[in-house]
Amino acid sequence: MATPTLDFWFEFASTYSYPAAMRIAPLAEAAGVAVRWRPFMLGPIFKAQGWTTSPFNLYPVKGRNMWRDLERICGALDLPFVKPKPFPQNTLLAARVALVGLAEVWGQDFCRAIYRAEFGEGRKIDEADAIVDVLRNIGVDAGAVLDRAQSNEIKSQLRAYTEEAQRLDIFGSPTFITADGELFWGNDRLEAALDWARR
Amino acid sequence: MATPTLDFWFEFASTYSYPAAMRIAPLAEAAGVAVRWRPFMLGPIFKAQGWTTSPFNLYPVKGRNMWRDLERICGALDLPFVKPKPFPQNTLLAARVALVGLAEVWGQDFCRAIYRAEFGEGRKIDEADAIVDVLRNIGVDAGAVLDRAQSNEIKSQLRAYTEEAQRLDIFGSPTFITADGELFWGNDRLEAALDWARR
Repeated sequence: MATPTLDFWFEFASTYSYPAAMRIAPLAEAAGVAVRWRPFMLGPIFKAQGWTTSPFNLYPVKGRNMWRDLERICGALDLPFVKPKPFPQNTLLAARVALVGLAEVWGQDFCRAIYRAEFGEGRKIDEADAIVDVLRNIGVDAGAVLDRAQSNEIKSQLRAYTEEAQRLDIFGSPTFITADGELFWGNDRLEAALDWARR
Repeated sequence: MATPTLDFWFEFASTYSYPAAMRIAPLAEAAGVAVRWRPFMLGPIFKAQGWTTSPFNLYPVKGRNMWRDLERICGALDLPFVKPKPFPQNTLLAARVALVGLAEVWGQDFCRAIYRAEFGEGRKIDEADAIVDVLRNIGVDAGAVLDRAQSNEIKSQLRAYTEEAQRLDIFGSPTFITADGELFWGNDRLEAALDWARR
C-alpha cells in the first residue's frame, strides 16, 4: 500500500498553527502518514472576506478567549507561550524562507523555530534580522538563503500556494487536506485528519 | 469536597451544540461534575458584533466546512445528521420551553430532543406545532407547558440569561464556564472544561 499523505497548510501569523506545527511530525510518524508542509498567506483570503486584520482583533471577546485558550493548550503540551506584540505580524519573508528550506532539509525545523520564537517567546518575526537569528539558531547560513528567498522563483511559488489555498476553499490556518480532498480546519482537527488520511 | 460544577450555555440554533448536548451528561457523570444547563439567545450577541445571521451563512466557505465537519463528528459519534432548512431557525419558543423544563425534571430530555429533531432529522423547530411534537415524544403534556413558556416570568428569565451570557463575554455556543470563571468555547473543548472543573 502507498504511504498515505496529508497536506498541512499554514500561515505563520496564525496562533493555533503554533501547537499544530509542534505536534504534527511525531503524530504523523506514529500514524504512518507523510506530511507535505504548505506555507501560504492568509491576508489575501481574509481580505476577500472583508477582513483587514485578524478576526481575533476584529472581534475582541473572541480574541481574548483565543489567547487564553491557546495558553491552556500550550500549558497542556508543555510548550512555552508568550503573546507576541504586535499581532498579527507580517509573515511574508518568513513564508518565503520556509519555501527555501522545505526544498532543502531544514524547512520543518525552520517553521517550528519561527512559531516558537513568535508564540513561545513573543518575539518579532517580521524583519530580516529576526529571520537571520532563527536561521542561525538552527545552524543555517542566512546569507544565501535570504537572497534565494527574494528570488522571483520563490515569490512565484508562494503566490501559487496562496492561490491554490483559495481554490481549495481554505479559509484559515492550520488546514489539513487529505489525498481524497477532505478538509480539516484547526489544531483540534489534526488527529481526525490523520485518521482520515490512513483509513 | 463539594461536587464541582460546570455551566453549559447553549443556543438551539447552534450546530456544534448538538453533539455537545448529546455528549455532556454521560461525560459529566463519569467526571463527577454537576452541569447547569443555561439556554440563551445568540441573536442579540451576534447583532452586537454586526452580524444579522449565522457567521456560517455570512462566510460561505466556512459554512460549507462546518456542515461537513459536523457530519463527520456525528458519524464518529453514531448520531444521526440531516442539515436543517432553513438555517438558522428562530429558537425563541424552544428556549422558553427549555426553561420551563429545566425547572422540572424533563428539561435535559427536551433539549436533546430539540437538537435531535433539528440536526438529526432536519426538522423545523421554530413553531409551536413542532415543539408540541417534541414534547409529546418525551411524554410531556404540551398545553400547560406552552402557556407557562409564554409567561412574563419565563420571558424575563430568558432575557436575564442572555444578558448574563453577554456579561460573561460569551460569543458563541456551546460555551462551558467553570465555577472559577474559566470559559471554554466549542464542542471540542468539552473534555478540557470538565477536566478544569474538577482539578
